[in-house]
Amino acid sequence: MPRRIQLTVAYDGTGFHGWQVQPGQATVQAELEAVLGQLEGSPVHVAGSGRTDAGVHALAQVAACSLHNPIPVENLVRAMNKLLPAAIRITAARDVALHFHPRFQAKRKTYEYRIFRGAICSPFECRYLHHHPYPLDIAAIEVLAPLLEGTHDFSAFATADEKDELGGSKVRTIFRSYIDAQGDHLRYRVSGNGFLKHMVRNIVGTLLEGGKGNLDAAGLKSFLEPGHGRKAGPRAPACGLYLVSVEYD
Amino acid sequence: MPRRIQLTVAYDGTGFHGWQVQPGQATVQAELEAVLGQLEGSPVHVAGSGRTDAGVHALAQVAACSLHNPIPVENLVRAMNKLLPAAIRITAARDVALHFHPRFQAKRKTYEYRIFRGAICSPFECRYLHHHPYPLDIAAIEVLAPLLEGTHDFSAFATADEKDELGGSKVRTIFRSYIDAQGDHLRYRVSGNGFLKHMVRNIVGTLLEGGKGNLDAAGLKSFLEPGHGRKAGPRAPACGLYLVSVEYD
Repeated sequence: MPRRIQLTVAYDGTGFHGWQVQPGQATVQAELEAVLGQLEGSPVHVAGSGRTDAGVHALAQVAACSLHNPIPVENLVRAMNKLLPAAIRITAARDVALHFHPRFQAKRKTYEYRIFRGAICSPFECRYLHHHPYPLDIAAIEVLAPLLEGTHDFSAFATADEKDELGGSKVRTIFRSYIDAQGDHLRYRVSGNGFLKHMVRNIVGTLLEGGKGNLDAAGLKSFLEPGHGRKAGPRAPACGLYLVSVEYD
Repeated sequence: MPRRIQLTVAYDGTGFHGWQVQPGQATVQAELEAVLGQLEGSPVHVAGSGRTDAGVHALAQVAACSLHNPIPVENLVRAMNKLLPAAIRITAARDVALHFHPRFQAKRKTYEYRIFRGAICSPFECRYLHHHPYPLDIAAIEVLAPLLEGTHDFSAFATADEKDELGGSKVRTIFRSYIDAQGDHLRYRVSGNGFLKHMVRNIVGTLLEGGKGNLDAAGLKSFLEPGHGRKAGPRAPACGLYLVSVEYD
């Protein structure tokens, strides 16, 4: 009987084609599966709390795998970090119930989107921020962001996903949605029970339209009306987005 | 008659084969010359305050070029940053005397070396630090670092350089040499009137030997004695090193 292990994973997404295994591409899931397969001596499947797009970062993605190897979790962390590229770090590991699944049992996920508004972006931060050196009405974005809270049909903020072709629900609950502006740094934080493909980046692109004076509260609310049909947007770049945390009961 | 312009340049050295132009390699000097040549409409030579090795970073390298283009310096900064890769930023530009040379007239250069001592290095910082998660006697390094101050023959800390084949002096003056330890972060700072090839990285590797108990004050001082002959070392990795500033009269 294998044991079930929960992994907390931080990664710089810049050099990866996202989370999910894709033939011939470097992905985070593929790197984890390769390293765990090496330690286990046979193929290991790693499940994540959800896919992240190419270039998106994670401070604490949650993953799980089943292993027969009896290695203590502290040693597993050390062994994995020795074998993984430096752009992926296991920050924690623990034994969990055999039925644990990081995606199906997730109750709350939090994303952060980081924007730098100054004229010149540091070369040491440009991989980790969206550089947007243009005027923005921050007060307007402050008003718009919380309007997304609540349970809504987020179809206008979703990109069609092949996995949804049979018609998955686009209704999600957003618990918190707000911005935090400090000097030239602007951060958007959003927590919800789940997110559609590209949803956070489409929300950020839409809020930036509000900051440019192209969208008001009524316009934003109209995107949340059922059967609205139009797409919000445009999509903000991947490099500013971080999966911050995934919470379970 | 062309004008002379001083440029202050920050760069993430990770993706470059150092400062100096090398055929077929991406280098910082080559990127600057390509962009300035495009703005000038003819080849432009860029002189730096000194070469940095492959992978070494700069917060404020100083460079200079001669241009006929009458573009105001503020616009030159903007135009260059639009054309340069995000890993290189021009942070300042100003018109200077025609005879200005950033290398021959430099009076003081400061380097910083950043070490992270914690068990797990953030994937967002691993490109910008030397990860050294092993025991170090910080008090011992604190004693050793200032012993390098003064005017000495630093041959033991230099790598043979093809440009020195005819026998350049290895005597340099170090104005300050000290470490600053804050939690898991250790920084070494050194200012001097000039540095030999690999000198700062060889100093750092030597100080780390002191921190491991392999070198005491007498041993370090012996490397500074004329005709000592042995090499100090080993060389610390490039990713932890930053050229912080270059000062002129």
